[in-house]
Amino acid sequence: MGIRVINSMDFGEFVDILGNIIEKCPLIAAAIWSQRPFKDLADLEKHVFDFIEALPQSGKEGILRCHPDLAGRELQQGTLTPESQREQRGAGLSSLGLEERRRLSQLNGAYKTRFGFPFVIAARLSDKATILRELERRLDNQPAQELSTALDEVRKICHLRLEDILQSLEDPAKL
Amino acid sequence: MGIRVINSMDFGEFVDILGNIIEKCPLIAAAIWSQRPFKDLADLEKHVFDFIEALPQSGKEGILRCHPDLAGRELQQGTLTPESQREQRGAGLSSLGLEERRRLSQLNGAYKTRFGFPFVIAARLSDKATILRELERRLDNQPAQELSTALDEVRKICHLRLEDILQSLEDPAKL
Repeated sequence: MGIRVINSMDFGEFVDILGNIIEKCPLIAAAIWSQRPFKDLADLEKHVFDFIEALPQSGKEGILRCHPDLAGRELQQGTLTPESQREQRGAGLSSLGLEERRRLSQLNGAYKTRFGFPFVIAARLSDKATILRELERRLDNQPAQELSTALDEVRKICHLRLEDILQSLEDPAKL
Repeated sequence: MGIRVINSMDFGEFVDILGNIIEKCPLIAAAIWSQRPFKDLADLEKHVFDFIEALPQSGKEGILRCHPDLAGRELQQGTLTPESQREQRGAGLSSLGLEERRRLSQLNGAYKTRFGFPFVIAARLSDKATILRELERRLDNQPAQELSTALDEVRKICHLRLEDILQSLEDPAKL
């Protein structure tokens, strides 16, 4: 069972392997290592989500600000984290037409100006048309409502990344 | 003035430039961006330290667990952050003799087993002899006292990194 392997990791391995379940926030995996052993994925995840929930609003916004723009500079330059790269590519964001890219970049800019953090969505559960539609729709949200929606997406991304890790620990051939 | 440049940054630039003032914890810089404008370095730093202080104990330990071992695998492999690389090299940790390396690695291992996080020290204010002596001395601390001592070192490292950034913004030729 993958969770047994995870429970047996020292903090170095744990942070190496789980450090990016919340994008660019290894601090969170490093914090919840203190709370092992975990019963299962849901239990581990609950510790991550509780940690986030206990952060002040600035910390929650900080998590969002560690996320890259969708189809942004980092995708073009190949400097995304491997997880983000796979997710954005899977949603078709690496093969946008010129007009789609212009539109996404314009909406992204408006979103960042309005909310003070980048648009975050679980790209693996979506596609480029839905992403554009959602970005347009969420731009009309009130700030408090949008912070909460964006953090829901962070939790979905975390869940999918954790599932991948557990699966690869159970079946290393799939790594 | 460097602080004016910092206050004028959007969150993307801010996290790019200040993201590693706390080692591998861009979340913290990303969080305090909400609290700009800052009066000066001391004011900015106070927001960072207040954020850390408000974290639960697991979060404080998490910050320490994001730090690399001194003279460890990442120094050998060249995978340290640029800041850590400079600091460890400056303290002479990249040119240890075999016996010094063995001793440091042994003490590091004992420290990590005892406290559940790696030994952190502001290497730029130290040298290899002092580092070894401090590691030996702090191994005898009680866990709560050592957590507090280690976080003091994190604050010193942050202060030095911030000074560097401000200086380079005031005098870009020094970058």
